[in-house]
Amino acid sequence: MEINKCIEHTCLKQDASEDEIKKLAQEAIEHNFLGICVNPDYVKFAKEILKNTNVKLVTVVNFPLGKAGGKITAQQAKEAIDNGADEIDTVINVSDIKNKKWDKIKEEIKEIKASCKDKILKVILETDLLTQDEIKISTETIKEAGADCAKTSTGFVKNGVGAKVEDVKIMKAAGIMVKASGGIKTKEQALKLIEAGADRLGTSSGCELIK
Amino acid sequence: MEINKCIEHTCLKQDASEDEIKKLAQEAIEHNFLGICVNPDYVKFAKEILKNTNVKLVTVVNFPLGKAGGKITAQQAKEAIDNGADEIDTVINVSDIKNKKWDKIKEEIKEIKASCKDKILKVILETDLLTQDEIKISTETIKEAGADCAKTSTGFVKNGVGAKVEDVKIMKAAGIMVKASGGIKTKEQALKLIEAGADRLGTSSGCELIK
Repeated sequence: MEINKCIEHTCLKQDASEDEIKKLAQEAIEHNFLGICVNPDYVKFAKEILKNTNVKLVTVVNFPLGKAGGKITAQQAKEAIDNGADEIDTVINVSDIKNKKWDKIKEEIKEIKASCKDKILKVILETDLLTQDEIKISTETIKEAGADCAKTSTGFVKNGVGAKVEDVKIMKAAGIMVKASGGIKTKEQALKLIEAGADRLGTSSGCELIK
Repeated sequence: MEINKCIEHTCLKQDASEDEIKKLAQEAIEHNFLGICVNPDYVKFAKEILKNTNVKLVTVVNFPLGKAGGKITAQQAKEAIDNGADEIDTVINVSDIKNKKWDKIKEEIKEIKASCKDKILKVILETDLLTQDEIKISTETIKEAGADCAKTSTGFVKNGVGAKVEDVKIMKAAGIMVKASGGIKTKEQALKLIEAGADRLGTSSGCELIK
């Protein structure tokens, strides 16, 4: 098992400097990580460092609250791809889940996926805020809408736990690619999440996980 | 001093339900608060409840990370205003401050303000992540760019303090309207922030503050 090929080495800090993003990209190249994940303001900057490498450039749109709606998010995804992003991670509107607006969720994800075309679209469910039933229905809903991957967490929920083995199992049972993210800090934890079905790991501790 | 006329009664929770937003709006009407502040997904819903009242409808764009860039944020502001928002709160890109890209910040705020036209545009500095010097230069920069108001905090920084008297004083010294926000929970705290120069208070504890 090569954990490094599952890792999206991540820095989504609000105050990240150019130096921090440069270090992140260089570490990803050095350790042959699958990709890096950065905010959209650093897509152009990171693309320059990653050119001529196999490291994928992942960014986040409508992040971390998921409140911008389908139209704006689709435009943001397009802009990010035009700037060089290889994959797009977005966030489901958790209020829509609480209000049981499944059709609205589906339309929104369809609109964003249309904008991503052949690029991988991952949809964060924010599992810390959901029941197990809500995780199940949400995963099925985004899959029907054309999402390529279900992702657990933004990492921005106050007192949130992030990626949990039981949640990954529920998501994987819907027959979709799964990205576990949020609070992944040890190799032991990483291996358990992969065993539960995670195809990708989003973590800011990539270098520690492969030691 | 009528504190209620400074209060923007706020609910920006990722999982807020329609019932919670309805309660927020009704409390604002009952206590004659200046306004409510909600995520953009609830602007249409809240507008319906607030019609025929004097309570202003405030929403947030490019929130809480400030990473979407000027073009997308300007589009989001326009959509929110078309949906009924009276005022727009956005977030400065803190990475641009750390990278000392003052011209980039100015261009971005100008673009967003152009989209807001005569509606009030507040710009959150995220003071928890800034030095006092950075707060001073940022306030001056957004003022030059045409922002109507400087706001302290998103309330989303992990372990963040939020609105602080000394930060409000620095912002007010630039000669701009100031909204204090984040962690305002008591009347005593509210009065100190107003004494320091805050014109507006963003708080989810509006009902407690006026007791």
